[in-house]
Amino acid sequence: MIWFTEYWTDGVGLTLKADEVKKIKSKYQEIVILDTPQFGKVLILDGLVQTTEKDEFIYHEMLAHPAMVMHPEPKKVLVIGGGDGGTVREVLKHPSVEEVHLCEIDEEVIIVSEKYFPTISEKLKDPKVKIFIEDGNAFLEEKKNYYDVIIMDSSDPVGASEVLFSEEFYKKVKASLKDNGIMVAQTESPMLQEEYFKNAVSQIKKVFKNVGIYLAYVPTYPSGMWSFTIASDVIDITDTSQNAERVKELKTKYFCDSIYACLFALPKFVQDMIKKS
Amino acid sequence: MIWFTEYWTDGVGLTLKADEVKKIKSKYQEIVILDTPQFGKVLILDGLVQTTEKDEFIYHEMLAHPAMVMHPEPKKVLVIGGGDGGTVREVLKHPSVEEVHLCEIDEEVIIVSEKYFPTISEKLKDPKVKIFIEDGNAFLEEKKNYYDVIIMDSSDPVGASEVLFSEEFYKKVKASLKDNGIMVAQTESPMLQEEYFKNAVSQIKKVFKNVGIYLAYVPTYPSGMWSFTIASDVIDITDTSQNAERVKELKTKYFCDSIYACLFALPKFVQDMIKKS
Repeated sequence: MIWFTEYWTDGVGLTLKADEVKKIKSKYQEIVILDTPQFGKVLILDGLVQTTEKDEFIYHEMLAHPAMVMHPEPKKVLVIGGGDGGTVREVLKHPSVEEVHLCEIDEEVIIVSEKYFPTISEKLKDPKVKIFIEDGNAFLEEKKNYYDVIIMDSSDPVGASEVLFSEEFYKKVKASLKDNGIMVAQTESPMLQEEYFKNAVSQIKKVFKNVGIYLAYVPTYPSGMWSFTIASDVIDITDTSQNAERVKELKTKYFCDSIYACLFALPKFVQDMIKKS
Repeated sequence: MIWFTEYWTDGVGLTLKADEVKKIKSKYQEIVILDTPQFGKVLILDGLVQTTEKDEFIYHEMLAHPAMVMHPEPKKVLVIGGGDGGTVREVLKHPSVEEVHLCEIDEEVIIVSEKYFPTISEKLKDPKVKIFIEDGNAFLEEKKNYYDVIIMDSSDPVGASEVLFSEEFYKKVKASLKDNGIMVAQTESPMLQEEYFKNAVSQIKKVFKNVGIYLAYVPTYPSGMWSFTIASDVIDITDTSQNAERVKELKTKYFCDSIYACLFALPKFVQDMIKKS
Protein backbone atom coordinates (compact mmCIF):
# COMPACT_ATOMS: atom_id res chain seq x y z
CA MET A 1 0.00 0.00 0.00
CA ILE A 2 1.09 3.56 -0.77
CA TRP A 3 -0.52 6.94 -0.10
CA PHE A 4 -1.01 9.02 -3.23
CA THR A 5 -1.91 12.71 -3.09
CA GLU A 6 -3.18 14.69 -6.06
CA TYR A 7 -2.50 18.36 -5.40
CA TRP A 8 -5.62 20.20 -6.56
CA THR A 9 -3.89 23.50 -5.86
CA ASP A 10 -0.64 24.42 -4.21
CA GLY A 11 -2.22 23.87 -0.80
CA VAL A 12 -5.09 21.35 -1.21
CA GLY A 13 -4.99 17.71 -2.21
CA LEU A 14 -6.97 14.49 -2.41
CA THR A 15 -5.15 11.65 -0.66
CA LEU A 16 -5.82 8.02 -1.58
CA LYS A 17 -4.57 4.80 -0.04
CA ALA A 18 -3.68 2.53 -2.94
CA ASP A 19 -1.78 -0.31 -4.48
CA GLU A 20 0.18 0.72 -7.53
CA VAL A 21 -0.92 -1.52 -10.39
CA LYS A 22 0.99 -0.03 -13.28
CA LYS A 23 3.23 2.92 -14.08
CA ILE A 24 4.39 3.71 -17.63
CA LYS A 25 5.70 6.64 -19.56
CA SER A 26 3.96 7.18 -22.87
CA LYS A 27 5.16 9.58 -25.54
CA TYR A 28 2.96 12.27 -23.97
CA GLN A 29 2.60 11.65 -20.26
CA GLU A 30 3.11 9.47 -17.23
CA ILE A 31 0.27 6.97 -16.86
CA VAL A 32 -0.33 5.46 -13.43
CA ILE A 33 -3.01 3.00 -12.41
CA LEU A 34 -3.81 2.62 -8.73
CA ASP A 35 -6.14 0.20 -7.02
CA THR A 36 -7.93 1.85 -4.07
CA PRO A 37 -10.35 0.48 -1.48
CA GLN A 38 -12.75 3.42 -1.89
CA PHE A 39 -12.83 4.23 -5.60
CA GLY A 40 -11.66 0.97 -7.18
CA LYS A 41 -9.10 1.34 -9.91
CA VAL A 42 -7.98 4.91 -10.62
CA LEU A 43 -6.40 6.26 -13.83
CA ILE A 44 -3.87 9.04 -13.25
CA LEU A 45 -2.22 11.08 -16.01
CA ASP A 46 0.77 13.24 -15.04
CA GLY A 47 -0.28 13.12 -11.39
CA LEU A 48 -3.95 14.06 -11.96
CA VAL A 49 -6.90 11.71 -11.40
CA GLN A 50 -8.75 11.25 -14.70
CA THR A 51 -11.26 8.61 -13.81
CA THR A 52 -12.09 6.07 -11.11
CA GLU A 53 -14.21 2.95 -11.32
CA LYS A 54 -16.55 4.13 -8.56
CA ASP A 55 -17.42 7.67 -9.64
CA GLU A 56 -16.67 7.72 -13.40
CA PHE A 57 -20.34 7.31 -14.23
CA ILE A 58 -21.08 10.80 -12.93
CA TYR A 59 -18.59 12.63 -15.11
CA HIS A 60 -19.22 10.56 -18.23
CA GLU A 61 -23.01 10.67 -18.01
CA MET A 62 -23.09 14.39 -17.32
CA LEU A 63 -20.61 15.18 -20.08
CA ALA A 64 -22.43 13.15 -22.75
CA HIS A 65 -26.17 13.08 -22.12
CA PRO A 66 -27.35 16.71 -21.94
CA ALA A 67 -25.94 17.51 -25.40
CA MET A 68 -27.07 14.17 -26.82
CA VAL A 69 -30.63 14.68 -25.52
CA MET A 70 -30.89 18.29 -26.69
CA HIS A 71 -29.97 17.39 -30.24
CA PRO A 72 -33.10 16.32 -32.19
CA GLU A 73 -31.39 13.27 -33.72
CA PRO A 74 -27.64 12.86 -33.09
CA LYS A 75 -26.16 10.51 -35.68
CA LYS A 76 -22.52 11.53 -36.00
CA VAL A 77 -20.65 12.24 -32.80
CA LEU A 78 -17.03 13.17 -32.15
CA VAL A 79 -15.30 12.73 -28.78
CA ILE A 80 -11.98 14.57 -28.44
CA GLY A 81 -9.81 13.11 -25.69
CA GLY A 82 -11.59 10.54 -23.56
CA GLY A 83 -9.34 7.61 -24.48
CA ASP A 84 -10.65 5.68 -21.48
CA GLY A 85 -13.88 5.13 -23.46
CA GLY A 86 -16.40 6.20 -20.82
CA THR A 87 -17.87 9.02 -22.89
CA VAL A 88 -18.14 6.80 -25.98
CA ARG A 89 -20.02 4.23 -23.88
CA GLU A 90 -22.58 6.88 -22.83
CA VAL A 91 -22.96 8.26 -26.37
CA LEU A 92 -23.84 4.80 -27.66
CA LYS A 93 -26.82 4.63 -25.31
CA HIS A 94 -28.63 6.94 -27.76
CA PRO A 95 -30.26 4.78 -30.45
CA SER A 96 -30.04 7.40 -33.20
CA VAL A 97 -26.22 7.26 -33.18
CA GLU A 98 -24.68 5.82 -36.36
CA GLU A 99 -21.04 6.77 -35.97
CA VAL A 100 -18.81 7.77 -33.04
CA HIS A 101 -15.33 9.09 -33.76
CA LEU A 102 -12.89 9.09 -30.88
CA CYS A 103 -9.88 11.35 -31.39
CA GLU A 104 -7.29 10.62 -28.69
CA ILE A 105 -3.70 11.82 -28.94
CA ASP A 106 -2.23 9.11 -26.69
CA GLU A 107 -2.79 5.52 -27.81
CA GLU A 108 -1.39 4.23 -24.51
CA VAL A 109 -4.43 5.61 -22.66
CA ILE A 110 -6.69 3.44 -24.81
CA ILE A 111 -4.46 0.40 -24.37
CA VAL A 112 -4.34 0.62 -20.55
CA SER A 113 -8.05 1.38 -20.35
CA GLU A 114 -8.93 -1.71 -22.40
CA LYS A 115 -6.71 -3.81 -20.16
CA TYR A 116 -7.47 -2.38 -16.68
CA PHE A 117 -10.84 -0.62 -16.98
CA PRO A 118 -13.06 -3.04 -18.92
CA THR A 119 -16.32 -1.54 -17.60
CA ILE A 120 -15.30 1.92 -18.83
CA SER A 121 -13.77 0.94 -22.18
CA GLU A 122 -16.29 -1.79 -23.00
CA LYS A 123 -17.74 -0.04 -26.06
CA LEU A 124 -14.50 0.98 -27.77
CA LYS A 125 -14.70 -2.10 -30.00
CA ASP A 126 -18.33 -1.41 -30.98
CA PRO A 127 -18.66 -1.41 -34.81
CA LYS A 128 -20.07 2.16 -34.71
CA VAL A 129 -16.83 3.44 -33.11
CA LYS A 130 -13.81 4.58 -35.09
CA ILE A 131 -10.65 5.55 -33.21
CA PHE A 132 -8.20 8.16 -34.48
CA ILE A 133 -4.84 8.47 -32.72
CA GLU A 134 -4.35 12.12 -33.53
CA ASP A 135 -4.08 15.61 -32.13
CA GLY A 136 -7.64 16.94 -31.76
CA ASN A 137 -6.71 20.34 -33.08
CA ALA A 138 -5.28 18.94 -36.33
CA PHE A 139 -8.05 16.35 -36.69
CA LEU A 140 -10.79 18.99 -36.85
CA GLU A 141 -9.21 20.55 -39.97
CA GLU A 142 -10.25 17.50 -41.98
CA LYS A 143 -13.91 17.39 -41.01
CA LYS A 144 -16.07 20.35 -41.95
CA ASN A 145 -19.82 20.55 -41.35
CA TYR A 146 -19.88 16.89 -40.38
CA TYR A 147 -20.86 16.23 -36.75
CA ASP A 148 -24.12 16.58 -34.86
CA VAL A 149 -22.44 16.61 -31.46
CA ILE A 150 -18.80 17.24 -30.49
CA ILE A 151 -17.75 16.37 -26.94
CA MET A 152 -14.55 17.80 -25.46
CA ASP A 153 -13.38 15.19 -22.97
CA SER A 154 -10.01 16.81 -22.41
CA SER A 155 -7.62 16.95 -19.50
CA ASP A 156 -6.86 20.27 -17.74
CA PRO A 157 -5.94 23.34 -19.82
CA VAL A 158 -2.22 22.99 -19.23
CA GLY A 159 0.47 21.58 -21.53
CA ALA A 160 -0.87 19.71 -24.57
CA SER A 161 -4.50 20.44 -23.71
CA GLU A 162 -4.15 24.23 -23.38
CA VAL A 163 -4.98 24.82 -27.05
CA LEU A 164 -8.28 22.94 -26.60
CA PHE A 165 -9.58 25.83 -24.47
CA SER A 166 -8.88 28.67 -26.94
CA GLU A 167 -11.19 30.75 -29.13
CA GLU A 168 -9.30 29.51 -32.21
CA PHE A 169 -10.02 25.94 -31.27
CA TYR A 170 -13.72 26.51 -30.55
CA LYS A 171 -14.01 28.10 -34.01
CA LYS A 172 -12.69 24.87 -35.51
CA VAL A 173 -15.16 22.88 -33.43
CA LYS A 174 -17.98 25.06 -34.76
CA ALA A 175 -16.80 24.59 -38.37
CA SER A 176 -16.81 20.82 -37.89
CA LEU A 177 -20.36 20.84 -36.56
CA LYS A 178 -23.43 20.90 -38.76
CA ASP A 179 -25.47 24.11 -38.47
CA ASN A 180 -27.67 22.72 -35.72
CA GLY A 181 -24.77 20.95 -34.02
CA ILE A 182 -24.04 21.08 -30.31
CA MET A 183 -20.70 21.24 -28.54
CA VAL A 184 -20.08 20.39 -24.91
CA ALA A 185 -16.84 20.66 -22.96
CA GLN A 186 -15.65 19.90 -19.44
CA THR A 187 -14.64 23.30 -18.09
CA GLU A 188 -12.98 22.72 -14.71
CA SER A 189 -14.00 23.64 -11.17
CA PRO A 190 -15.51 27.06 -10.42
CA MET A 191 -14.45 26.65 -6.77
CA LEU A 192 -10.76 25.83 -7.17
CA GLN A 193 -9.97 26.76 -10.79
CA GLU A 194 -12.03 29.91 -11.16
CA GLU A 195 -9.76 31.50 -13.77
CA TYR A 196 -9.66 28.41 -16.00
CA PHE A 197 -13.42 28.09 -15.71
CA LYS A 198 -14.17 31.73 -16.52
CA ASN A 199 -11.68 31.75 -19.38
CA ALA A 200 -13.17 28.65 -21.01
CA VAL A 201 -16.69 30.05 -20.72
CA SER A 202 -15.70 33.42 -22.15
CA GLN A 203 -13.88 31.86 -25.14
CA ILE A 204 -16.89 29.65 -25.91
CA LYS A 205 -19.22 32.66 -25.64
CA LYS A 206 -17.15 34.46 -28.30
CA VAL A 207 -17.84 31.67 -30.78
CA PHE A 208 -21.34 30.32 -30.09
CA LYS A 209 -24.65 32.15 -29.81
CA ASN A 210 -26.33 29.98 -27.17
CA VAL A 211 -24.18 28.94 -24.22
CA GLY A 212 -25.18 27.17 -21.00
CA ILE A 213 -23.18 26.13 -17.95
CA TYR A 214 -24.06 23.27 -15.65
CA LEU A 215 -22.45 21.42 -12.73
CA ALA A 216 -22.13 17.90 -11.41
CA TYR A 217 -20.70 16.31 -8.27
CA VAL A 218 -17.42 14.54 -9.14
CA PRO A 219 -15.84 13.58 -5.78
CA THR A 220 -12.38 12.81 -7.19
CA TYR A 221 -12.03 16.06 -9.18
CA PRO A 222 -10.83 19.28 -7.53
CA SER A 223 -13.41 20.54 -4.99
CA GLY A 224 -15.98 17.96 -6.14
CA MET A 225 -17.88 20.71 -8.00
CA TRP A 226 -17.29 20.22 -11.72
CA SER A 227 -18.50 22.40 -14.60
CA PHE A 228 -19.55 21.69 -18.15
CA THR A 229 -20.27 24.20 -20.89
CA ILE A 230 -22.71 23.39 -23.68
CA ALA A 231 -23.11 25.54 -26.79
CA SER A 232 -24.92 25.75 -30.09
CA ASP A 233 -25.70 28.40 -32.68
CA VAL A 234 -29.12 27.07 -33.65
CA ILE A 235 -30.47 24.96 -30.81
CA ASP A 236 -31.55 26.76 -27.64
CA ILE A 237 -29.54 24.57 -25.31
CA THR A 238 -30.97 26.34 -22.26
CA ASP A 239 -34.43 24.84 -22.87
CA THR A 240 -34.40 21.57 -20.94
CA SER A 241 -37.99 20.72 -21.77
CA GLN A 242 -36.97 19.65 -25.27
CA ASN A 243 -36.74 15.90 -25.93
CA ALA A 244 -37.18 15.23 -22.21
CA GLU A 245 -39.07 12.04 -23.00
CA ARG A 246 -35.80 10.53 -24.30
CA VAL A 247 -34.17 10.87 -20.86
CA LYS A 248 -36.38 8.18 -19.34
CA GLU A 249 -35.14 5.61 -21.87
CA LEU A 250 -31.49 5.99 -20.87
CA LYS A 251 -29.94 3.48 -18.50
CA THR A 252 -28.04 5.82 -16.20
CA LYS A 253 -27.12 6.15 -12.53
CA TYR A 254 -26.82 9.96 -12.15
CA PHE A 255 -28.48 11.74 -15.09
CA CYS A 256 -32.27 11.55 -14.95
CA ASP A 257 -35.35 13.61 -15.73
CA SER A 258 -35.11 15.81 -12.64
CA ILE A 259 -31.39 16.46 -13.19
CA TYR A 260 -32.16 17.35 -16.82
CA ALA A 261 -35.05 19.66 -15.94
CA CYS A 262 -32.85 21.50 -13.41
CA LEU A 263 -29.62 21.35 -15.39
CA PHE A 264 -28.96 25.10 -15.29
CA ALA A 265 -29.89 25.78 -11.65
CA LEU A 266 -26.59 27.27 -10.52
CA PRO A 267 -25.48 28.64 -7.15
CA LYS A 268 -25.54 32.41 -7.11
CA PHE A 269 -21.74 32.83 -6.95
CA VAL A 270 -21.33 30.68 -10.07
CA GLN A 271 -24.00 32.72 -11.88
CA ASP A 272 -22.03 35.83 -10.95
CA MET A 273 -18.78 34.38 -12.33
CA ILE A 274 -20.44 33.67 -15.66
CA LYS A 275 -22.05 37.09 -15.96
CA LYS A 276 -18.62 38.64 -15.84
CA SER A 277 -17.17 36.12 -18.32
CA MET B 1 3.70 25.11 7.54
CA ILE B 2 2.32 21.64 8.19
CA TRP B 3 0.30 19.24 6.05
CA PHE B 4 -2.97 18.18 7.65
CA THR B 5 -5.04 15.29 6.30
CA GLU B 6 -8.63 14.62 7.28
CA TYR B 7 -9.38 10.98 6.58
CA TRP B 8 -12.84 10.93 5.05
CA THR B 9 -12.78 7.15 5.10
CA ASP B 10 -10.10 4.62 5.88
CA GLY B 11 -8.59 5.18 2.43
CA VAL B 12 -9.51 8.72 1.29
CA GLY B 13 -8.53 12.06 2.72
CA LEU B 14 -8.48 15.79 2.15
CA THR B 15 -4.98 17.21 2.57
CA LEU B 16 -4.41 20.86 3.45
CA LYS B 17 -1.23 22.89 3.72
CA ALA B 18 -1.61 25.01 6.83
CA ASP B 19 -0.20 26.95 9.72
CA GLU B 20 -1.46 25.73 13.06
CA VAL B 21 -3.05 28.69 14.83
CA LYS B 22 -4.43 27.03 17.94
CA LYS B 23 -4.85 23.59 19.47
CA ILE B 24 -6.82 23.03 22.65
CA LYS B 25 -8.56 20.20 24.42
CA SER B 26 -12.04 21.07 25.61
CA LYS B 27 -14.12 18.89 27.91
CA TYR B 28 -15.59 17.21 24.84
CA GLN B 29 -13.11 17.27 22.02
CA GLU B 30 -9.85 18.43 20.51
CA ILE B 31 -10.26 21.81 18.82
CA VAL B 32 -7.71 22.82 16.18
CA ILE B 33 -7.62 25.97 14.11
CA LEU B 34 -5.53 26.02 10.96
CA ASP B 35 -4.78 28.86 8.61
CA THR B 36 -4.65 27.67 4.98
CA PRO B 37 -3.84 29.48 1.74
CA GLN B 38 -6.86 28.02 -0.07
CA PHE B 39 -9.68 27.98 2.47
CA GLY B 40 -8.59 30.62 4.97
CA LYS B 41 -8.98 29.65 8.59
CA VAL B 42 -10.32 26.15 9.21
CA LEU B 43 -12.04 24.83 12.35
CA ILE B 44 -11.32 21.17 13.10
CA LEU B 45 -13.01 19.14 15.83
CA ASP B 46 -11.49 15.76 16.69
CA GLY B 47 -9.67 15.70 13.36
CA LEU B 48 -12.71 16.56 11.20
CA VAL B 49 -13.14 19.81 9.28
CA GLN B 50 -16.25 21.61 10.57
CA THR B 51 -16.04 24.88 8.70
CA THR B 52 -13.67 27.01 6.65
CA GLU B 53 -13.75 30.73 5.97
CA LYS B 54 -13.89 30.23 2.21
CA ASP B 55 -16.68 27.67 1.79
CA GLU B 56 -18.70 27.97 5.04
CA PHE B 57 -21.33 30.07 3.30
CA ILE B 58 -22.46 27.10 1.26
CA TYR B 59 -23.15 24.77 4.16
CA HIS B 60 -24.69 27.43 6.41
CA GLU B 61 -26.93 28.94 3.73
CA MET B 62 -28.14 25.57 2.52
CA LEU B 63 -28.77 24.28 6.02
CA ALA B 64 -30.76 27.32 7.14
CA HIS B 65 -32.62 28.91 4.23
CA PRO B 66 -34.80 26.19 2.68
CA ALA B 67 -36.57 25.49 5.99
CA MET B 68 -36.74 29.18 6.89
CA VAL B 69 -38.29 30.04 3.53
CA MET B 70 -40.79 27.18 3.55
CA HIS B 71 -42.18 28.19 6.92
CA PRO B 72 -44.92 30.84 6.48
CA GLU B 73 -43.55 33.06 9.27
CA PRO B 74 -40.65 31.67 11.34
CA LYS B 75 -40.43 33.55 14.65
CA LYS B 76 -38.84 31.13 17.09
CA VAL B 77 -35.89 29.12 15.82
CA LEU B 78 -33.63 26.60 17.55
CA VAL B 79 -30.17 25.65 16.29
CA ILE B 80 -28.69 22.51 17.90
CA GLY B 81 -24.91 22.36 17.56
CA GLY B 82 -23.49 25.03 15.30
CA GLY B 83 -21.44 26.80 17.97
CA ASP B 84 -19.43 28.56 15.26
CA GLY B 85 -22.47 30.80 14.70
CA GLY B 86 -22.76 30.48 10.91
CA THR B 87 -26.25 29.01 10.97
CA VAL B 88 -27.47 31.62 13.44
CA ARG B 89 -26.14 34.35 11.13
CA GLU B 90 -28.17 32.95 8.22
CA VAL B 91 -31.34 32.50 10.32
CA LEU B 92 -31.23 36.18 11.30
CA LYS B 93 -31.44 37.21 7.64
CA HIS B 94 -35.17 36.40 7.85
CA PRO B 95 -36.99 39.48 9.13
CA SER B 96 -39.82 37.55 10.83
CA VAL B 97 -37.40 36.01 13.34
CA GLU B 98 -37.91 37.17 16.94
CA GLU B 99 -35.82 34.67 18.87
CA VAL B 100 -32.97 32.31 18.03
CA HIS B 101 -31.88 29.74 20.58
CA LEU B 102 -28.48 28.17 20.07
CA CYS B 103 -27.95 24.96 22.01
CA GLU B 104 -24.27 23.98 21.87
CA ILE B 105 -22.75 21.41 24.18
CA ASP B 106 -19.19 22.75 24.01
CA GLU B 107 -18.70 26.37 25.09
CA GLU B 108 -15.11 26.31 23.83
CA VAL B 109 -16.36 26.10 20.23
CA ILE B 110 -18.22 29.37 20.70
CA ILE B 111 -15.23 31.00 22.39
CA VAL B 112 -12.75 30.10 19.64
CA SER B 113 -15.23 31.02 16.92
CA GLU B 114 -15.77 34.47 18.40
CA LYS B 115 -12.02 34.96 18.57
CA TYR B 116 -10.82 33.43 15.30
CA PHE B 117 -13.85 33.40 12.97
CA PRO B 118 -15.45 36.84 13.35
CA THR B 119 -17.23 36.70 9.98
CA ILE B 120 -18.90 33.42 10.95
CA SER B 121 -19.74 34.22 14.59
CA GLU B 122 -20.65 37.88 14.03
CA LYS B 123 -24.30 37.50 15.00
CA LEU B 124 -23.88 35.47 18.19
CA LYS B 125 -24.15 38.66 20.24
CA ASP B 126 -27.32 39.82 18.46
CA PRO B 127 -30.04 40.62 21.03
CA LYS B 128 -32.38 38.09 19.41
CA VAL B 129 -29.90 35.28 20.13
CA LYS B 130 -29.84 33.29 23.36
CA ILE B 131 -27.09 30.73 23.88
CA PHE B 132 -27.56 27.58 25.95
CA ILE B 133 -24.48 25.52 26.81
CA GLU B 134 -26.30 22.22 27.05
CA ASP B 135 -26.73 18.80 25.58
CA GLY B 136 -29.25 19.10 22.74
CA ASN B 137 -31.02 15.93 23.72
CA ALA B 138 -31.66 17.13 27.29
CA PHE B 139 -32.49 20.68 26.21
CA LEU B 140 -35.42 19.57 24.06
CA GLU B 141 -37.19 18.04 27.09
CA GLU B 142 -37.81 21.53 28.44
CA LYS B 143 -39.39 23.07 25.36
CA LYS B 144 -42.61 21.60 24.09
CA ASN B 145 -44.63 22.93 21.15
CA TYR B 146 -42.43 26.02 21.05
CA TYR B 147 -40.35 26.39 17.87
CA ASP B 148 -41.26 27.18 14.28
CA VAL B 149 -38.01 25.80 12.90
CA ILE B 150 -35.41 23.49 14.46
CA ILE B 151 -32.06 23.18 12.70
CA MET B 152 -29.73 20.26 13.45
CA ASP B 153 -26.23 21.62 12.86
CA SER B 154 -24.48 18.62 14.36
CA SER B 155 -21.18 16.92 13.77
CA ASP B 156 -20.98 13.38 12.42
CA PRO B 157 -23.13 10.65 13.99
CA VAL B 158 -20.31 9.20 16.06
CA GLY B 159 -19.55 9.66 19.75
CA ALA B 160 -21.57 12.41 21.44
CA SER B 161 -23.55 13.23 18.29
CA GLU B 162 -24.76 9.68 17.60
CA VAL B 163 -27.94 10.16 19.64
CA LEU B 164 -28.85 13.18 17.48
CA PHE B 165 -29.52 10.83 14.54
CA SER B 166 -31.93 8.46 16.32
CA GLU B 167 -35.70 8.01 16.03
CA GLU B 168 -36.02 8.82 19.77
CA PHE B 169 -34.31 12.12 19.24
CA TYR B 170 -36.36 13.11 16.18
CA LYS B 171 -39.49 12.43 18.24
CA LYS B 172 -38.27 14.97 20.78
CA VAL B 173 -37.57 17.44 17.99
CA LYS B 174 -41.11 16.98 16.74
CA ALA B 175 -42.55 17.52 20.23
CA SER B 176 -40.59 20.77 20.54
CA LEU B 177 -41.94 22.07 17.23
CA LYS B 178 -45.29 23.73 16.83
CA ASP B 179 -47.76 21.75 14.70
CA ASN B 180 -46.70 23.45 11.49
CA GLY B 181 -43.02 23.44 12.46
CA ILE B 182 -40.19 22.36 10.21
CA MET B 183 -37.03 20.45 11.07
CA VAL B 184 -33.90 20.30 8.97
CA ALA B 185 -30.73 18.31 9.62
CA GLN B 186 -27.36 17.85 7.96
CA THR B 187 -27.33 14.15 7.03
CA GLU B 188 -23.83 13.35 5.76
CA SER B 189 -22.53 12.37 2.33
CA PRO B 190 -24.47 9.87 0.18
CA MET B 191 -21.24 9.13 -1.73
CA LEU B 192 -18.87 8.31 1.13
CA GLN B 193 -21.17 7.79 4.12
CA GLU B 194 -24.04 5.97 2.49
CA GLU B 195 -25.05 4.03 5.61
CA TYR B 196 -25.11 7.11 7.88
CA PHE B 197 -27.09 8.99 5.24
CA LYS B 198 -29.66 6.25 4.70
CA ASN B 199 -30.03 5.64 8.42
CA ALA B 200 -30.66 9.31 9.18
CA VAL B 201 -33.25 9.56 6.41
CA SER B 202 -35.04 6.40 7.50
CA GLN B 203 -35.20 7.51 11.17
CA ILE B 204 -36.61 10.91 10.16
CA LYS B 205 -39.18 9.22 7.89
CA LYS B 206 -40.43 7.19 10.87
CA VAL B 207 -41.28 10.39 12.73
CA PHE B 208 -42.41 12.99 10.17
CA LYS B 209 -45.05 12.76 7.45
CA ASN B 210 -43.39 14.96 4.81
CA VAL B 211 -39.68 14.43 4.25
CA GLY B 212 -37.41 15.84 1.54
CA ILE B 213 -33.72 15.35 0.81
CA TYR B 214 -31.49 17.86 -0.94
CA LEU B 215 -27.80 18.27 -1.69
CA ALA B 216 -25.20 21.03 -1.83
CA TYR B 217 -21.56 21.23 -2.88
CA VAL B 218 -19.34 21.51 0.21
CA PRO B 219 -15.75 21.09 -1.04
CA THR B 220 -14.21 20.50 2.39
CA TYR B 221 -16.72 17.84 3.51
CA PRO B 222 -16.29 14.19 2.52
CA SER B 223 -16.76 13.75 -1.25
CA GLY B 224 -17.97 17.34 -1.65
CA MET B 225 -21.56 16.08 -2.01
CA TRP B 226 -23.43 16.92 1.18
CA SER B 227 -27.00 16.02 2.10
CA PHE B 228 -29.69 17.74 4.14
CA THR B 229 -33.02 16.31 5.23
CA ILE B 230 -36.01 18.58 5.83
CA ALA B 231 -39.23 17.41 7.44
CA SER B 232 -42.62 18.59 8.63
CA ASP B 233 -45.94 17.05 9.55
CA VAL B 234 -48.12 19.88 8.25
CA ILE B 235 -46.16 21.83 5.64
CA ASP B 236 -45.53 20.16 2.31
CA ILE B 237 -41.80 20.80 2.31
CA THR B 238 -41.45 19.33 -1.18
CA ASP B 239 -43.32 22.28 -2.73
CA THR B 240 -40.61 24.80 -3.55
CA SER B 241 -42.99 27.26 -5.14
CA GLN B 242 -44.21 28.39 -1.71
CA ASN B 243 -42.87 31.71 -0.42
CA ALA B 244 -40.40 31.83 -3.32
CA GLU B 245 -40.68 35.63 -3.40
CA ARG B 246 -38.88 35.75 -0.03
CA VAL B 247 -35.76 34.14 -1.53
CA LYS B 248 -34.95 37.19 -3.62
CA GLU B 249 -34.72 39.36 -0.52
CA LEU B 250 -31.98 37.27 1.08
CA LYS B 251 -28.38 38.39 0.81
CA THR B 252 -26.73 35.10 -0.05
CA LYS B 253 -23.91 33.75 -2.20
CA TYR B 254 -25.11 30.20 -2.93
CA PHE B 255 -28.84 29.86 -2.19
CA CYS B 256 -30.99 31.67 -4.74
CA ASP B 257 -34.29 31.32 -6.57
CA SER B 258 -33.07 28.73 -9.06
CA ILE B 259 -31.44 26.63 -6.33
CA TYR B 260 -34.67 26.81 -4.33
CA ALA B 261 -36.88 25.89 -7.30
CA CYS B 262 -34.67 22.86 -8.03
CA LEU B 263 -33.91 21.93 -4.43
CA PHE B 264 -35.09 18.33 -4.74
CA ALA B 265 -33.57 17.48 -8.14
CA LEU B 266 -31.43 14.52 -7.07
CA PRO B 267 -29.12 12.25 -9.03
CA LYS B 268 -30.79 8.94 -9.77
CA PHE B 269 -28.54 6.88 -7.46
CA VAL B 270 -29.39 9.15 -4.52
CA GLN B 271 -33.11 8.83 -5.31
CA ASP B 272 -32.64 5.06 -5.26
CA MET B 273 -30.91 5.17 -1.85
CA ILE B 274 -33.83 7.11 -0.39
CA LYS B 275 -36.50 4.85 -1.84
CA LYS B 276 -34.97 1.97 0.06
CA SER B 277 -34.59 4.01 3.27
